[in-house]
Amino acid sequence: MFKKILIANRGEIALRIIRTCREMDIKTVAVYSTADRESLHVRFADEAVCIGDAPSKDSYLNIPRIISAAEITNADAIHPGYGFLSERAEFSAICHEYGIKFIGPTPAMIQAMGDKSTAKDTMKKAGVPTIPGSDGLLDSIEEGRKLAKEIGYPVIVKATAGGGGKGMRIINDDSEFKKAWDDAKREAGAAFGNDGLYLEKFVEEPRHIEIQVVGDQYGKVCHLSERDCSVQRRHQKLVEETPSPIVSQELREKMGEAAIKGAKAINYEGAGTIEFLVDKHGKFYFMEMNTRIQVEHPITEEVTDYDLIKEQIKVAAGVPISGTNYFPNLYAMECRINAEDPANGFRPSPGKITNLHMPGGHGVRIDSHVYAGYTIPPNYDSMIAKLIVSGQSREEVITRMKRALQEFVIEGVKTTIPFHIALMDNQIFRSGKFTTKFLETSFDFSTLPK
Amino acid sequence: MFKKILIANRGEIALRIIRTCREMDIKTVAVYSTADRESLHVRFADEAVCIGDAPSKDSYLNIPRIISAAEITNADAIHPGYGFLSERAEFSAICHEYGIKFIGPTPAMIQAMGDKSTAKDTMKKAGVPTIPGSDGLLDSIEEGRKLAKEIGYPVIVKATAGGGGKGMRIINDDSEFKKAWDDAKREAGAAFGNDGLYLEKFVEEPRHIEIQVVGDQYGKVCHLSERDCSVQRRHQKLVEETPSPIVSQELREKMGEAAIKGAKAINYEGAGTIEFLVDKHGKFYFMEMNTRIQVEHPITEEVTDYDLIKEQIKVAAGVPISGTNYFPNLYAMECRINAEDPANGFRPSPGKITNLHMPGGHGVRIDSHVYAGYTIPPNYDSMIAKLIVSGQSREEVITRMKRALQEFVIEGVKTTIPFHIALMDNQIFRSGKFTTKFLETSFDFSTLPK
Repeated sequence: MFKKILIANRGEIALRIIRTCREMDIKTVAVYSTADRESLHVRFADEAVCIGDAPSKDSYLNIPRIISAAEITNADAIHPGYGFLSERAEFSAICHEYGIKFIGPTPAMIQAMGDKSTAKDTMKKAGVPTIPGSDGLLDSIEEGRKLAKEIGYPVIVKATAGGGGKGMRIINDDSEFKKAWDDAKREAGAAFGNDGLYLEKFVEEPRHIEIQVVGDQYGKVCHLSERDCSVQRRHQKLVEETPSPIVSQELREKMGEAAIKGAKAINYEGAGTIEFLVDKHGKFYFMEMNTRIQVEHPITEEVTDYDLIKEQIKVAAGVPISGTNYFPNLYAMECRINAEDPANGFRPSPGKITNLHMPGGHGVRIDSHVYAGYTIPPNYDSMIAKLIVSGQSREEVITRMKRALQEFVIEGVKTTIPFHIALMDNQIFRSGKFTTKFLETSFDFSTLPK
Repeated sequence: MFKKILIANRGEIALRIIRTCREMDIKTVAVYSTADRESLHVRFADEAVCIGDAPSKDSYLNIPRIISAAEITNADAIHPGYGFLSERAEFSAICHEYGIKFIGPTPAMIQAMGDKSTAKDTMKKAGVPTIPGSDGLLDSIEEGRKLAKEIGYPVIVKATAGGGGKGMRIINDDSEFKKAWDDAKREAGAAFGNDGLYLEKFVEEPRHIEIQVVGDQYGKVCHLSERDCSVQRRHQKLVEETPSPIVSQELREKMGEAAIKGAKAINYEGAGTIEFLVDKHGKFYFMEMNTRIQVEHPITEEVTDYDLIKEQIKVAAGVPISGTNYFPNLYAMECRINAEDPANGFRPSPGKITNLHMPGGHGVRIDSHVYAGYTIPPNYDSMIAKLIVSGQSREEVITRMKRALQEFVIEGVKTTIPFHIALMDNQIFRSGKFTTKFLETSFDFSTLPK
């Protein structure tokens, strides 16, 4: 087992990793920027090395400084957390060169999943369902109509140079095809000077559902069931839960199998997540694979009782896994508490936390690096705590989450707590029937307390 | 279901009950003494009524004031918590007279278990193992020897007027009987002027192991497995864990069955705990039954996923239980964090908490009513927090507990945290092989940091 792990990250995830290292009797090295001197991860690590100024390129993204810190402190492994260098194949390679174990996949595995189109091809070959569509640009309207018939309506045509919804049309059946095609082509030409179009299956009422996998160095991969991350604002996840209210045990097993197939196709090692879109018919399509720990990993821990950081460390040290799949025996949900003002477009609200009281009691877990008197720096993402709640039913979890949110006191900065409280009372959310567009189309942010 | 519950208690258990009420959408009324104005249970309840001054007889033990508070606020039920009025048959009866539901057993059930010798007789009749011994005083040495042979050595003879170990002898076999008997008789006569002796089976290497039961109004009773509370100092529990390291599945089932038999014998309703002594041969003997929620109930919640306060409230409202027994699927442990100085004989250390930071992360639960700036009053028991940790093995729980204890910051008062940290490192404790006498005989308190 490793003797000392350097954590190339900050905030709650750095503290999260330190906690597990302590439980495994492994020494820890924190690295920090000058903006993070007062962070808890610095205080709780056995050693701490300042690696530069606040801009990430000068510190948390500065590979030479991080490697130097590992060498100086004699760390035999590096945990990258999420974000920053966690999915940089180059970093994994450099760690290897310097004889420091990178706790995560090899450069080849990261690369295989880093490029979206390569990843999609790899998954398709492995038998993982991907969104059917044209291979690149369509040459003619006839080719488009033929393909649409093959993959089945509805489909969507998109401008290859597109963005912001321009040059994009949803087509529900063949009779709509010509008009939609012509409109999209014209719009694309006018907006981007490039009227090239491609086509893919339109995913109806999509939900973002991901499968957690863990693979070892000996070819074994298991899954730990799904997380539903459909509550999003501008593609940012705000709330995650497991099990998903729309996933049947049959679908869960199918998605789990597909995720294992995908991971095995790249000989995946460590903890990873395969993200899928699931449509209203229960069909699922590969979106991308995250070759690192996810922000929302604790909800899986709460329902499977596994410590995923411990699993990552064990796998990296060469410990084999059992290869058994884990299904949830409980319900869990996570609310991301961000220092943002939800009544004002989620504007970041850095500053000093003047008063802090965290909720407790049955079924409540908090992962956070902040404390009373801590100043949230403006340089990094605004997540200051993850409030994770578990219970015997989705309803119990929602009522418990609301109770915990109401107990949570954070003074001095604005937070997303009022948004989460309103969400827990929202009838659409409570029904479990919503899509990734739910917040944009059906949530009234104007009623949030100013 | 109840609309409004008055909580006739204070501290962490009052807050614990409020939390579950909130999750059940039941309004709450806190009562408080003038010493508890600033307690969190007052702040988090929907209504709060001051019922008198700090001495318990003027407030938390003052039945007329509590009943008045319930009447004024229109509470339709009272939860007594633990301690204070929770095991007073009279209080249960008065609640009933006033048409307020007492969340706990009937006066008859409380009475049946309130008197130790009646309780023992009732349990014996129900087929629950009790410590075998003489029915009161022995008339002669011959009677004693005969009985000792019947119940099997070792036995203990005790002075009926005894105390402090005087007039007491452990007898390992028949050859020792005469001398021990004569010595005890002489010592008792000299010390107490009364040389009457009684005899019972000597419980070798005793462990305190209790079974949690829940009964409903329709005669169903189930058990939720055991809690091992053998870590005690002067009969005060300091650490509890489940499952017990010395209880096999076979013994667990036997003890569970016995506990259910005992509870059914008094038609028990609500949550209750049957305390047993278990000897080194795996034999168990009834000690007493607590007809209320226990301080250490959260460890059972962590391993069975049940909310015991919710079960109490549901049963009181007439909801039937399933009657299924629950066995732990995890390990859990609780450390009682008291405002006491463990390096100075656990001397109470009331006062103001000037700085507070509570641990968090995977497998960590905290039940506490204190916050930074809170002044612990000198009037009540000194428990200020319960730190509850769960994990996949006893070893994981111990390392996690140590990690959480090390993160816990409480400044301004002395606490039992240093004791608990030392205990987590203690080899006897870690081995799982210890008795209720362990702290007194084998723990070196002098090494605790002053």
